[in-house]
Amino acid sequence: MKGKFISFEGPDGSGKTSVIKVVEKYFIDMGYEVIITREPGGIKISEKIRDIIHDVEHKEMDPRTEALLYAASRSQHLHQKIIPAVNAGKIVLCDRYVDSSLAYQGYGRNLGFDKVLAINMFAIDGVFPDLTIFVDVKPEIGLERVFSTEEREKNRLDLEPLKFHKKIYEGYLELLKKYPNRIKRINGEQAMDLVANEAIALIKKSL
Amino acid sequence: MKGKFISFEGPDGSGKTSVIKVVEKYFIDMGYEVIITREPGGIKISEKIRDIIHDVEHKEMDPRTEALLYAASRSQHLHQKIIPAVNAGKIVLCDRYVDSSLAYQGYGRNLGFDKVLAINMFAIDGVFPDLTIFVDVKPEIGLERVFSTEEREKNRLDLEPLKFHKKIYEGYLELLKKYPNRIKRINGEQAMDLVANEAIALIKKSL
Repeated sequence: MKGKFISFEGPDGSGKTSVIKVVEKYFIDMGYEVIITREPGGIKISEKIRDIIHDVEHKEMDPRTEALLYAASRSQHLHQKIIPAVNAGKIVLCDRYVDSSLAYQGYGRNLGFDKVLAINMFAIDGVFPDLTIFVDVKPEIGLERVFSTEEREKNRLDLEPLKFHKKIYEGYLELLKKYPNRIKRINGEQAMDLVANEAIALIKKSL
Repeated sequence: MKGKFISFEGPDGSGKTSVIKVVEKYFIDMGYEVIITREPGGIKISEKIRDIIHDVEHKEMDPRTEALLYAASRSQHLHQKIIPAVNAGKIVLCDRYVDSSLAYQGYGRNLGFDKVLAINMFAIDGVFPDLTIFVDVKPEIGLERVFSTEEREKNRLDLEPLKFHKKIYEGYLELLKKYPNRIKRINGEQAMDLVANEAIALIKKSL
């Protein structure tokens, strides 16, 4: 039996990563095989690409270069890790996927939704998640969380101004309208257990 | 006055790199400002991407990932280094550019000319070289040169079988037919000074 490919999206500081851990535990306890992975990264070559993307020294990075590096990392991660796991019957919980590029590079960097989608269609060969959960947290609140958590490492994109993060948030709202069947919104501004419960309910419905 | 952007193409071991050095010296002696650069690489971020592409340990690299990494490296190198140099009136001699991706990934990796061109059009924003010199050396002879030169570092693509390099060569011949005005062929199987003279004559005609 084929597994499920579920991606989590949201602004930086939306709490996705914590939600995913609670969700993982829940479905493991239910007897499912579950793996957590993340973008950019998740596997050797993609983690090396992640280091180039996130390096705060790379202030001169061209937006097109950034978009292509995310797509390169995604392609490797998808074909080497996600697809084999789903084919082996596992539930794959992926922290960010193609919608992040559409929101961050397409809208945030103004490269345009269509152009960023086109290079990503090459990377993902048409493989979209079975379900995408958008953890909805306003960008002001997300950024406040990122910068008030000292142990959290700040990457090159976290350091962009609030205006950039607001454009990304608007981009996500557009994506919710474009893909209403695949992308479902949950309220990320409540207590963690309530956010996780909303995610779990959506996933159970999709199984 | 705007400078010129000239790329050199050819199979591995075609002697491009040596030809470029002779050409550089000639035009510097003529009083031009000349820079030599190379792909993948040529600038910090792109050299880091080069290391990921060439690493012989990365046997698992997906062909789409490879194509996207070349495009990412190209985008950065073009916008940060080549375009500013050409705008400053310099002659830019670039060891490999977009035609390498069309030949290596489009034909060699069977990803298809059109798909590889599309992601590269995103990367280069329509900027093609003023002149591309194809140093024509049969793949058997090129590979023989690569492996008989001990001090030459062998990268992940050099280690592919002769069949792969033959497909790339066929790809280059197709590109010569597709872009007859931009790409000019010179005979790379003669003595180095004769090869360089052919290149110099073509560049002089384009200035």
